[in-house]
Amino acid sequence: MADKIRAYEDFDVGLSIPYGKKLVTAQEIIRFADQFDPQPMHLDEEAGKESLLGGLAASGWHTCGIFMRLAYDAFIKHSTAQGAPGVNELRWRLPVMAGDELTGFSTVMEKRVLKSRPNMGLITFRHVVTNQRGEIAMDMENPILIALRNPVTGQAEAGA
Amino acid sequence: MADKIRAYEDFDVGLSIPYGKKLVTAQEIIRFADQFDPQPMHLDEEAGKESLLGGLAASGWHTCGIFMRLAYDAFIKHSTAQGAPGVNELRWRLPVMAGDELTGFSTVMEKRVLKSRPNMGLITFRHVVTNQRGEIAMDMENPILIALRNPVTGQAEAGA
Repeated sequence: MADKIRAYEDFDVGLSIPYGKKLVTAQEIIRFADQFDPQPMHLDEEAGKESLLGGLAASGWHTCGIFMRLAYDAFIKHSTAQGAPGVNELRWRLPVMAGDELTGFSTVMEKRVLKSRPNMGLITFRHVVTNQRGEIAMDMENPILIALRNPVTGQAEAGA
Repeated sequence: MADKIRAYEDFDVGLSIPYGKKLVTAQEIIRFADQFDPQPMHLDEEAGKESLLGGLAASGWHTCGIFMRLAYDAFIKHSTAQGAPGVNELRWRLPVMAGDELTGFSTVMEKRVLKSRPNMGLITFRHVVTNQRGEIAMDMENPILIALRNPVTGQAEAGA
């Protein structure tokens, strides 16, 4: 906890936070798929080659899990984030293949304090996951509940 | 492979396919969170009680993985499904707590044959995950690529 904790006030619209890197191994792809998404292209290289994905490729839900860990390590961990109500417009744009190294960034798109809870804000991020060629593998919009450091007390500020 | 394979033609708009059941254990919640989403409310009962979720609760991405397995077992496995380009409007409506038993259903909302690939259709499902009280824990819209049994050959049918 050496880093400064980011609260709602610290996420300016336009702020873009880069992720670290994550190498995706065949073993990890198969282990996730075996538990959650045992479609052949997520379990077997030959089946992957015969599929639209072109080789052993991670389940899209596995890519979501990897994204979550990248975002957690990059900024969720050292923030007042309280969870998320959902996801808008998630797109798996390219397959994530065994041996890919993923990274990416989260950008603050918009933010507002909740009318019902003046100590809590909703910040909508665009999360982008890229591969080692800089291509977008996945992106999504995702509103996250993030507590304020200094709750809004004036009714005018809390409204709208 | 005893069951009949469902192809594009077999998914009528309005068809609703029920899932089996999945008990979610504290151990599974913690194991997933430790790897992908180590926020305190997904790792520890006491931290969960102090959070908006009210107890040890699964990562939303874990719920997505559980959903995928329920849908795989219910209909993806015995179908010509080829993967999915993304997800629209995913909502985590209620926390999934340790001890919850999840089930649900997938409903065919709309379908069309791809102009660019007359052997492939895009079927948009609404997936609904419910808990043991019949409450909706998560829902989403999700287009899935599903191959035709008999590819459309007439240009009039393939268009629009």
